[in-house]
Amino acid sequence: MIGVDWGTSSLRAFRIADNGAVIESRSSARGIMTITDRRFEPVLRAEIGDWLAAGETRILLCGMIGSRQGWREARYLPCPAGIVDLAGQLIPVGFDGASVMIVPGIATEDADGVPEVMRGEETQILGAASAERMVACLPGTHSKWASVAGGRIEGFTTYMTGEIFAALGEHTILARTLRRAPIDEAAFDEGLARARVAGGLLHHVFGVRTRVLRGGLSEAAAFSYLSGLLIGHEMVSVFGGGIGINDKIRVIGSGALTALYARAIGAYGGEPVTIGEAATAAGLALLGGRVTWQ
Amino acid sequence: MIGVDWGTSSLRAFRIADNGAVIESRSSARGIMTITDRRFEPVLRAEIGDWLAAGETRILLCGMIGSRQGWREARYLPCPAGIVDLAGQLIPVGFDGASVMIVPGIATEDADGVPEVMRGEETQILGAASAERMVACLPGTHSKWASVAGGRIEGFTTYMTGEIFAALGEHTILARTLRRAPIDEAAFDEGLARARVAGGLLHHVFGVRTRVLRGGLSEAAAFSYLSGLLIGHEMVSVFGGGIGINDKIRVIGSGALTALYARAIGAYGGEPVTIGEAATAAGLALLGGRVTWQ
Repeated sequence: MIGVDWGTSSLRAFRIADNGAVIESRSSARGIMTITDRRFEPVLRAEIGDWLAAGETRILLCGMIGSRQGWREARYLPCPAGIVDLAGQLIPVGFDGASVMIVPGIATEDADGVPEVMRGEETQILGAASAERMVACLPGTHSKWASVAGGRIEGFTTYMTGEIFAALGEHTILARTLRRAPIDEAAFDEGLARARVAGGLLHHVFGVRTRVLRGGLSEAAAFSYLSGLLIGHEMVSVFGGGIGINDKIRVIGSGALTALYARAIGAYGGEPVTIGEAATAAGLALLGGRVTWQ
Repeated sequence: MIGVDWGTSSLRAFRIADNGAVIESRSSARGIMTITDRRFEPVLRAEIGDWLAAGETRILLCGMIGSRQGWREARYLPCPAGIVDLAGQLIPVGFDGASVMIVPGIATEDADGVPEVMRGEETQILGAASAERMVACLPGTHSKWASVAGGRIEGFTTYMTGEIFAALGEHTILARTLRRAPIDEAAFDEGLARARVAGGLLHHVFGVRTRVLRGGLSEAAAFSYLSGLLIGHEMVSVFGGGIGINDKIRVIGSGALTALYARAIGAYGGEPVTIGEAATAAGLALLGGRVTWQ
């Protein structure tokens, strides 16, 4: 089968053997936001046409491709939700020469009754899940923390940390006092530590400016300090809200941000295990094994 | 004398009698950021030339005009600082036909050793201060909360609330789910209440989006809800950090934002008194009475 994580800004495709092994993978920048006139079918064909020519006839899509802005809207299933629940609610789309199905998203509410939604991450989380209880952390523009037990996602919480980091660094007065630079671990750790003291995020971020102007922080280090400050505030909320540092935490993702989250969790005393892109392919393979292909 | 609060984006001028009464006031959009080639003197002359022609010879300037980007840099005095301290450290600038002096800013450090600075607000606060102990709240792009006792500013804290509200509403995904609109008090109050529950700011702001998409909040109400959420988080930090709700709180400023802050303080059980533009003129008059004009 072919599994595709088709998100807002990118598309990642996996050719998966019947035993779940990934035969080949590829990625491109053809996220759904780059696609005009609803040309989803020709774009998908251009991306994986050679796999179809080689005999594949089953395609499973997860991610924002199932949103209102995507190919066809798939509903959000309520939590708790596992592989069996998702596999029972796949949405077919028309495609000459292959069966194509879209994975639904999932939804929950926080303790205060405010809705939470995800699309795509549920497949990654279930791909990383085992029978044990665990907590999944997915860093990103909107990071997600999910509680998983018995192979089902019980609930999750979203933090706008990544997007707020970008907005603060580019569209506030902080833009004048920081410079995009490789992560300075010492400055990142200072930001993490600062997040734990009284004052609050709205006050702490102003200190990025005053520390550069009067406190000797360099503009390059300020970039890392702000990152640590925001990720640190996310940790304060996460570990103050029911997730324990001794929970089995799996950080799912690849790249520098995943490493920073693992570092932050470690600074709080946790021992996170990082799982890369394999989680997505594993989740798609698990779902594919449950599908009644049409 | 003439008193001028010359900030980044605006200039407010007061003609003040010897007894401190404001004879006339005016304002313009000629903030220091609009001034090229250091043309401070001609701009000031254009703004208040008629008052000079009428016989005024003494001009006192406060605000960002004393910053590095202003006419001449005036240092920051350490807290505690009162009228006598500021009046003893005025900085003269050359101006044909009048004596012109710039008021210094003030600086402090928070409990964690991070620097804090202000320019202009110190004059407003001291203009609103009496001999009693009080807390001054100055809403704005960067709101300031100051503790005042015995006529001196003992310390203060800055929150980037206003600027973060703008950055979130204009430069994140929230821009798609809210619409600038007159304040909806019920939605503002919901935001205030939400700020008091567990979850943290980085999580709560994501709820603005999900409540519009799935929770029935209108895009117009979302604007007020986000405002309440951010101002509410400022209140949580302020009242969790040493300022008591029973302190005598003076909200200094004019316009809609000042009313929202008074409402938020009231929602926490406080009884704030609002003081308008009179505080600036009063502070300049108090300082003017202490100046040894050259």
